[in-house]
Amino acid sequence: MGKRILSGALIVAFTLPMLVFSSTGILNTLVALISAVCLYEALIVTKYVEAKHIMVFSLLLAVTVPFVTDLSRRGIVIWMALYAFVMFILIIVNFPKFKFQHICVVFMLSLVIPYFFSNIVFLRRFDGGGYYICLVFIGAWFSDTAALLFGMLFGRHKLCPNISPKKTVEGSIGGVVGATLGYLLFGLVVERFCGVTVNYLILVIAGALASGAAQLGDLSASVIKRTFGVKDFGKLIPGHGGMLDRFDSVLFVAPYLVAMVSFFPFLKGGIVW
Amino acid sequence: MGKRILSGALIVAFTLPMLVFSSTGILNTLVALISAVCLYEALIVTKYVEAKHIMVFSLLLAVTVPFVTDLSRRGIVIWMALYAFVMFILIIVNFPKFKFQHICVVFMLSLVIPYFFSNIVFLRRFDGGGYYICLVFIGAWFSDTAALLFGMLFGRHKLCPNISPKKTVEGSIGGVVGATLGYLLFGLVVERFCGVTVNYLILVIAGALASGAAQLGDLSASVIKRTFGVKDFGKLIPGHGGMLDRFDSVLFVAPYLVAMVSFFPFLKGGIVW
Repeated sequence: MGKRILSGALIVAFTLPMLVFSSTGILNTLVALISAVCLYEALIVTKYVEAKHIMVFSLLLAVTVPFVTDLSRRGIVIWMALYAFVMFILIIVNFPKFKFQHICVVFMLSLVIPYFFSNIVFLRRFDGGGYYICLVFIGAWFSDTAALLFGMLFGRHKLCPNISPKKTVEGSIGGVVGATLGYLLFGLVVERFCGVTVNYLILVIAGALASGAAQLGDLSASVIKRTFGVKDFGKLIPGHGGMLDRFDSVLFVAPYLVAMVSFFPFLKGGIVW
Repeated sequence: MGKRILSGALIVAFTLPMLVFSSTGILNTLVALISAVCLYEALIVTKYVEAKHIMVFSLLLAVTVPFVTDLSRRGIVIWMALYAFVMFILIIVNFPKFKFQHICVVFMLSLVIPYFFSNIVFLRRFDGGGYYICLVFIGAWFSDTAALLFGMLFGRHKLCPNISPKKTVEGSIGGVVGATLGYLLFGLVVERFCGVTVNYLILVIAGALASGAAQLGDLSASVIKRTFGVKDFGKLIPGHGGMLDRFDSVLFVAPYLVAMVSFFPFLKGGIVW
């Protein structure tokens, strides 16, 4: 437990600069760094990286995507196409040594991880962008923590024993409660102290749904780990496994929140950090 | 050979409306249709569609992406994320029946095919957009046809016997010559009759590289067919196999051309159809 608290503090120390410098290239850089580390861990787990240059090109994609998303629509699509071109060239040149199916797994992870995380960069464009970026982490980590606590205290009914035997329905409900309370609390604080106008109804709904996205991220990561027979994505963060073990929820909350805010901007008139 | 000419005429009759109505929603609609048919063929070949709804959601992605690319940058990324969310939910709910690796193959094809084709929609935004759309098809089909002819006449050295035993180095060179001549011819015609200013140096280079993209598309399709032990993607077009057998080169020339035109707009001041 002490280890968990220590590593939690480490993570906060890492994500805090993302919030403080959200309007600068530091945000892109940190998102690029997280994307690359998480992708590296995921690819290692698959054991499908049959040659070093697959890893090199995939990591190149991961570190550039958070900057490319600041470019045009066609820039985003072309970047993806360029990566696909390289992967197809590698398959063709190394046929039949590199398996098409394996490269597809590499391709999926290399696209999902950096493009999902890049949504954090999109959020800063909204009025009140810095606050929305906070809500990515609040949604993910309040959900995770509350699910853990509720599961330990009240957990009785297994959620999906095939994928993640420790998860319970009670924990899952706890996650929803936790994220909703976290959003509400954040709304109260920023309204009182930062002069932000908050739409509480949408904020509460967004919090509940954020927990849904967070839990989907968590279960998706579990499916990958279960498929490849590993317990964690690495040992980078003491007590938390790899970076991706800790950021799997964030990974899924970020795109969810961009979609949500596009339709319902629930924080208005805030100072954008 | 008669069948081939007939089906060639059919394809022209299909693609001509894309050029004539390139500034309207008809272009998006036709690109959506081609994407969906090609994706359907590819997914059937993989045999990885373990339930109908995987196919339904993938085809939904294919028909919507050519419209979504007209939206914002975050619209493009969110659409991809939404599809990934659905796929992960399907994997989780059907674990371990649906294999993660299989869904990754579905994911790669479902992204590559519609997002690649959607570059045709991007091209119309350029000054002289209609002409560039022509060049996608000229690049692909002059390369294909010349490669076939050169291969039949002079083919001696196998290009990649593991993947596509009939392809020769001579055919490949012929493809480059054919596409380059096609581009040059097109440049001469539009400069003379349509009052377009043409940069011939870039046009020639673009033609040669377009053949490279076309051949990469052709070989990539072959790798997929070889991996799953089929000869063609279907029987839709008499003498040509499936739609994807005929459009594999177009698929790769489209994103290549958007990248090329972004840096070197080699046709200028034309009337955009």
